[in-house]
Amino acid sequence: MRLISSLTENLRRLSRSGRESLRREAARMHSEDLAGAIERFEPEEAAAILSQLDPLTAGTVLFDMATETAAKVIEEIPDDHLAACLDLLPMDDAVDLREKFDEERYDRLLQLIPPEDSAEIKRLLAHPEGTVGRLMTEHFFSVSPDSTMEELLLDLRQASEDKYETVNDVYVLDETKTLIGVFSLRKALRANPEDQAEQVMRADPEVVSASDEDLDAARTMARYGYYALPVVDDAGHMIGVFAGDDAQEVIREGETEQVLALSAVSGDAESYLSLSMFSLFKRRIPWLLVLFLAENLTGWVMRHYGQSSLSVPPLMFFVPLLIGAGGNVGAQVTTTITRALALEEVDLSDWKRVIGRELGTALMIGACLAFLGYFRAYLPLPIGWDSGRNLSLVVGCALPLIVFWASSVGSLLPMVAKRLGADPAVMSAPFITTFVDATGLIIYFEIAMRIMPSAA
Amino acid sequence: MRLISSLTENLRRLSRSGRESLRREAARMHSEDLAGAIERFEPEEAAAILSQLDPLTAGTVLFDMATETAAKVIEEIPDDHLAACLDLLPMDDAVDLREKFDEERYDRLLQLIPPEDSAEIKRLLAHPEGTVGRLMTEHFFSVSPDSTMEELLLDLRQASEDKYETVNDVYVLDETKTLIGVFSLRKALRANPEDQAEQVMRADPEVVSASDEDLDAARTMARYGYYALPVVDDAGHMIGVFAGDDAQEVIREGETEQVLALSAVSGDAESYLSLSMFSLFKRRIPWLLVLFLAENLTGWVMRHYGQSSLSVPPLMFFVPLLIGAGGNVGAQVTTTITRALALEEVDLSDWKRVIGRELGTALMIGACLAFLGYFRAYLPLPIGWDSGRNLSLVVGCALPLIVFWASSVGSLLPMVAKRLGADPAVMSAPFITTFVDATGLIIYFEIAMRIMPSAA
Repeated sequence: MRLISSLTENLRRLSRSGRESLRREAARMHSEDLAGAIERFEPEEAAAILSQLDPLTAGTVLFDMATETAAKVIEEIPDDHLAACLDLLPMDDAVDLREKFDEERYDRLLQLIPPEDSAEIKRLLAHPEGTVGRLMTEHFFSVSPDSTMEELLLDLRQASEDKYETVNDVYVLDETKTLIGVFSLRKALRANPEDQAEQVMRADPEVVSASDEDLDAARTMARYGYYALPVVDDAGHMIGVFAGDDAQEVIREGETEQVLALSAVSGDAESYLSLSMFSLFKRRIPWLLVLFLAENLTGWVMRHYGQSSLSVPPLMFFVPLLIGAGGNVGAQVTTTITRALALEEVDLSDWKRVIGRELGTALMIGACLAFLGYFRAYLPLPIGWDSGRNLSLVVGCALPLIVFWASSVGSLLPMVAKRLGADPAVMSAPFITTFVDATGLIIYFEIAMRIMPSAA
Repeated sequence: MRLISSLTENLRRLSRSGRESLRREAARMHSEDLAGAIERFEPEEAAAILSQLDPLTAGTVLFDMATETAAKVIEEIPDDHLAACLDLLPMDDAVDLREKFDEERYDRLLQLIPPEDSAEIKRLLAHPEGTVGRLMTEHFFSVSPDSTMEELLLDLRQASEDKYETVNDVYVLDETKTLIGVFSLRKALRANPEDQAEQVMRADPEVVSASDEDLDAARTMARYGYYALPVVDDAGHMIGVFAGDDAQEVIREGETEQVLALSAVSGDAESYLSLSMFSLFKRRIPWLLVLFLAENLTGWVMRHYGQSSLSVPPLMFFVPLLIGAGGNVGAQVTTTITRALALEEVDLSDWKRVIGRELGTALMIGACLAFLGYFRAYLPLPIGWDSGRNLSLVVGCALPLIVFWASSVGSLLPMVAKRLGADPAVMSAPFITTFVDATGLIIYFEIAMRIMPSAA
């Protein structure tokens, strides 16, 4: 894979030199790389490029683009081009595109494509999101138990090219459409031409149900090394195939969500640069607020033991709250950036953009926590800690600065590690947390010495 | 997938009722599930079961077992059975088994299998670990540019069953063995019988080099949705195929290693229960020591500001060190357990075993940190902080208890979350860290009040 940033430059040049050269270059690229490059344009420019591409390529690129960015670009593309995209895409991909559309518009576009295609899309859409049914393809190659290999090969030869997305397996269905066996195309080739499907097939194949959770089904496929699994409905009839590449996509997204969840970042897997700063904020603030409240417990413990007999200065009661907030933000940021680097959603040449986005997000988070921290310290018991104006001000000023500092460290260090040839993951969340503990306290005490010189 | 624990029970019963019923049941199971169940036996018992299975199944199960466990089991299996396993496995899997062997024994076994097979294993072993060359298969289906589809299909029909592991693609090589094109078997079937390979193929296929890093190549495959990629040597000759199931395995291990690294756990991906407590300890202690040293910096900052004018009691200087250690251990444990649950390496019925292992590991970690913490506090400046015997004792006692407590919380809470139907990952590292902050301090102060009642 080439550097995404150089692809973007290349594409910008080509889009000016006309449709022909653009299409020629696009045909030589992977749609995933094209999508990564086009995500970096402004929506109008991206739409202009996509409108110049043939509808199948444009549709595939839209499919591969991150949801939030694609939604903006789609608004700028005319109906007829979009309808052509929908129609030419494999139907399960066309279904997947819907989350990037205004619902009303999507339904309107469905009326512009051939009725049998829109009917298929509607059938797939009837399955709930997150289930196998939503991701399967209805195009598979099936035969009756008494078909011979000769008939089967002849049938396959005559079928139209786009009818079966990837045929490596042949499914044997009885007259009620119940799956009774499966065999590979290779096996069909090697069998005698007069052998019947029933003799060649392996009976009782593993299946998934259309209502199964997609991640579970995908993990099963990966665990046992399958490249496709037949999908059955509740009555046991075979209605589709869950393909390996869709399963891998599901796993990749599930892994990303788990990695982020483990560092208290919530939300669906989306490419890092496609998320606005406000989206980054929304993914991080909920857990930070929960953790902020939980960390008050620590302050309460310190108050309880410290005040009774130790005569600990009140300034110290806020130490766990402050280093906790810094550590949590640092963990969120370093995990997000490390993951984006591993998935090649960003590369080192993006460092300015990454820092800019992280600091912008840190401003929003810092403002929230500063507000909360100030009032938590200032308000009278039992809501707040009645800590006086000056100390409350110290806490309210230190919190955003520590958040800002933790975000800088958490985003820069993984990139520095990668630049030095190390695995960015060595800049682990505990490492960043520990680093921010020490340096965050310097910030806190320095502010304290300025605002309340008597206490420090 | 059935619960592993019930599989284990079932297997134990079958192994007593004789070889035939055991083989019959094993044939109906996935080797991955069999491996998961057999890992739970004592090595002797596991070896007895594997010796009763046919060599291909036994070899596949050994391949699927975790390294550390398989190594112990292999020691108990006689040479002739093992040699049969090696010979019947796909060669790339036989190569992969080597890390589970005593090297000398492996080389001795190679002399017991047919020379052409051992030669192939040696060729694959010549590629460094972690490269594509080590994981590829040399068995692929190739034709010359002028072969016709008719010849090709005839050739495929006559080839022996085990010659090509999975033939979905046909590779076109020129007379120097340079790869010039590829086409699918399906395309071959649909083309005219007299068409030549050159006319049917897609030129310039994507390749990987045998010396490429396996994880990079696997990520490329996943990104573009390939199910196999041709492998070339430095001179550009095609020497093998990197298959999708091997790539998925590499990705799964890489993801696990990254998830654990992000929580400061080092080491290769291995199934949780297959690791001894000492292995768990070795994976966690290096970073804990680094973080322990780094956290001293925080104590130093607090000393610097606290002692000068704030008259902070010395007991407070150790607060960041203690809650840091607890938080780091908690993050390591919760991430390890969450990952093991996600990969179904453990299930909820294993809870006693998990807690037992974690507390055993916590004892070792706690002992190390207690020793370090005590002397750090006790020794005279500038090596230690000259904190007096009592305070040093408080630190030395609190550290192992906090580690113990963090390990209990970090291992139990993800399982409780799963039991309640939530995603275990909601028990994120920051959440556990925050929880341990508050509760760890209670431990610390309570100990302090007992050992040095004058100070508290």
